Amino acid sequence: MNETEHHDEEHGKAEASDNGVYGDAGVVSSAFLAHIGAAIADRDTLTLKSDVGRLHQSEIGDLLHALMPEQRRSLVELMGDEFDFTALTEVDEAIRLDIVGSLPNAQIAQAVQQLDSDDAVYILEDLDPADQDEILSELPFTERIRLRRSLGYPEETAGRRMQTEFVAVPPFWTVGQTIDYMREDKNLPDSFSQVFVVDPTFRLVGTVDLDRILRSKRNVKVEDVMRETRHAIPATMDQEEAAQIFEQYDLLSAAVVDENERLVGVLTIDDVVDVIQQEAEEDLLRMGGVGDEELSDTVMIAARSRVPWLLVNLVTAFLAASVIGLFDATIEQIVALAVLMPIVAGMGGNAGSQTMTVTVRALATRDLDIYNAGRIIRREMGVGLLNGAIFATLIGLVAGFWFQDPNLGGIIAAAMVINMFVAAAGGILIPLLLDKVGADPAVASAVFVTAVTDVVGFFAFLGLATWWFGLL
Amino acid sequence: MNETEHHDEEHGKAEASDNGVYGDAGVVSSAFLAHIGAAIADRDTLTLKSDVGRLHQSEIGDLLHALMPEQRRSLVELMGDEFDFTALTEVDEAIRLDIVGSLPNAQIAQAVQQLDSDDAVYILEDLDPADQDEILSELPFTERIRLRRSLGYPEETAGRRMQTEFVAVPPFWTVGQTIDYMREDKNLPDSFSQVFVVDPTFRLVGTVDLDRILRSKRNVKVEDVMRETRHAIPATMDQEEAAQIFEQYDLLSAAVVDENERLVGVLTIDDVVDVIQQEAEEDLLRMGGVGDEELSDTVMIAARSRVPWLLVNLVTAFLAASVIGLFDATIEQIVALAVLMPIVAGMGGNAGSQTMTVTVRALATRDLDIYNAGRIIRREMGVGLLNGAIFATLIGLVAGFWFQDPNLGGIIAAAMVINMFVAAAGGILIPLLLDKVGADPAVASAVFVTAVTDVVGFFAFLGLATWWFGLL
Repeated sequence: MNETEHHDEEHGKAEASDNGVYGDAGVVSSAFLAHIGAAIADRDTLTLKSDVGRLHQSEIGDLLHALMPEQRRSLVELMGDEFDFTALTEVDEAIRLDIVGSLPNAQIAQAVQQLDSDDAVYILEDLDPADQDEILSELPFTERIRLRRSLGYPEETAGRRMQTEFVAVPPFWTVGQTIDYMREDKNLPDSFSQVFVVDPTFRLVGTVDLDRILRSKRNVKVEDVMRETRHAIPATMDQEEAAQIFEQYDLLSAAVVDENERLVGVLTIDDVVDVIQQEAEEDLLRMGGVGDEELSDTVMIAARSRVPWLLVNLVTAFLAASVIGLFDATIEQIVALAVLMPIVAGMGGNAGSQTMTVTVRALATRDLDIYNAGRIIRREMGVGLLNGAIFATLIGLVAGFWFQDPNLGGIIAAAMVINMFVAAAGGILIPLLLDKVGADPAVASAVFVTAVTDVVGFFAFLGLATWWFGLL
Repeated sequence: MNETEHHDEEHGKAEASDNGVYGDAGVVSSAFLAHIGAAIADRDTLTLKSDVGRLHQSEIGDLLHALMPEQRRSLVELMGDEFDFTALTEVDEAIRLDIVGSLPNAQIAQAVQQLDSDDAVYILEDLDPADQDEILSELPFTERIRLRRSLGYPEETAGRRMQTEFVAVPPFWTVGQTIDYMREDKNLPDSFSQVFVVDPTFRLVGTVDLDRILRSKRNVKVEDVMRETRHAIPATMDQEEAAQIFEQYDLLSAAVVDENERLVGVLTIDDVVDVIQQEAEEDLLRMGGVGDEELSDTVMIAARSRVPWLLVNLVTAFLAASVIGLFDATIEQIVALAVLMPIVAGMGGNAGSQTMTVTVRALATRDLDIYNAGRIIRREMGVGLLNGAIFATLIGLVAGFWFQDPNLGGIIAAAMVINMFVAAAGGILIPLLLDKVGADPAVASAVFVTAVTDVVGFFAFLGLATWWFGLL
């Protein structure tokens, strides 16, 4: 297998593996899809078990996405025991629920036992409580207890995302004993990068990275190579907060502890990467006025989730319209004002959303704090004035020539400077204020910023014109 | 140290460590800042070496951010050899260049030798070539060669981000030999989670995770426990693409190979997490019409970077204005049209940007592909029609009552349905088209979508009114 020759600048998936799943565009190739589709139609379990069985869970996930709903259900049914249930952690919630819903609870219980606890929880958490209980009741005692404990923590906490399989040893063991224990014990997690050190009551006393163990002599005591755990994560901590700790301290895994500081699980970087992606996505969607939408949502669900934002915008749009209404007599006499007024409002809106984007992002990454807020507010005001002056000149000249009226050019230029400055002020102060009062600046800032730039833009332009042309 | 008691829902930093760096708000506490500031003023190197020396690199980075520029330079100077240069990888480019620029090249060369190669490259890559050469020339031969090779790869590639320190063993070694080698060799990387298996010409033949080594008997051959490397990353691969492979296959580290498939380095998940954050941030900033800005940029730089986007918006704003200009005679007779027209354009713009946000994000995460594009286009059209109908009714009623004119209400309702539908179509087709022709949909979509919704909104509303009231 020569992987590097498949280099394709645009599409990582295509090159990451050459097992024929992906085509040139980095999506599941139509040839592979047709091949699997035919095998499903023929109920050819042998082909499916060999050609789907060898895939990585994420590749199976992509395959499920590309198949029709009835094909998905048939695939899982035909593969039986050999279907890798971890693939269900890689698909949208709607697809997961559809597949899981088509299977008998006994089969799910069977499959869940093969999974790491974090994957099992991921699949179980969205099921309705009755099904969840039935599945859990079919599991062996220890597994049931572990999964119930994880499911008992609130959604989106470290406790929900943690893996309850881990390696824990007492501090007085030697490196040699620890290595022997790992060689003998068959109940170890699938993969791990740290060994935890606990006292007899399972309180966490430290951690040892595997490379540390490998580099130490067999007779060295574990307590002499362990590090004190500075970053134990309480199980009730929000997953986003836990992700920030991973990022700040470059952790690969971290111990999760309960309220008595007893070790209950381990949070690993791969789960954290998903959380980081998810949170970045949420911020972006919120700023675009879209809630927690998924691509698999129906028209009704998507439409409904976007209504609140449109409603708020409707209110601010009527507010802006009523400002224009104040000056209808002026517009009646100088129609050019109606032609030009959206320019003032629109440019202000864009400048404001630039400042707002920078501010919201800086707040999310905590790059904006009390030490630099003053400097950044001043900077944004400066940018507003500078770009305001530049674009006021440009627009003033164009408008003046267009309508052959230097007065109109001057008025629009003055209105532009005012609105660009207000846009900069609004773009930074509104998110800061929302953050201060505990609201999510990503959600609400855009509405307020455009409301301000519309109202101020129309008022400044039409007001100045009314005053200048003596139409008061 | 009892960490869990410091639980604070909002602020991960405050609780991640209780060494007094952070205050309640998750930012460097003013007490700590004053303490360090005083020590700097007193040139009290003892206090600085103990109180800053014990911090994590990211905590020192946050401290540097909070200090004044001259304090930063003094701190680094006063701490001398004991300053942890990895902290410089945690600060903005402007701060890094300021600090590095204030130090003699000989001292930088000294410091760079203590760093992992990826951190060294991170610090060196932004320096001007003359300084870079001078620093490199003071390094020992092997280090110089390694850093030059990394720096020789283009910016933002795997080759730039990789670490050139790694553990590589031949396939015929036993697990026992490998463990002994790791115990003896003092030139190992600071931390690692994989051992690479190479042939005599340093071609990569496989990888073994450390937990696999620890779980195997000493006499087992490495080639019997190694996995074939499915995800070797070419050094010239774009870092974003590499990050996608890490994410898809849940990798902790991956071998980086040159064009002859020889192992040249290792890319680790902590660097990838930074890349993921950075790329998500870039997408968000681009969608907000801001380029690669940093908070530490000056007014001039920030203002200039935002001009291109404002210029493009200026052109589209004048385009929209000229559409209004077509109907100035109509507006002169019915001023209410001027009052209401921004509502039609604005609501369309918002609906369009909702669809666009979903589309841009789905393209970035590759959730939107040929298998679901058709379905998602149909869904967005459906959402556009549904929400169009709802808001047309609402706006039509309000406008009709406001101006006591049912005709006006009907006209604005009809224009709203048209514009919301066009907004949905534009919101999905424009980013798809831009992606198809190789442009970045995050950058350019917003301009085109608002241009379309403004032009269509004004044209539909004013055009319908002109026709209905017989003013053609």
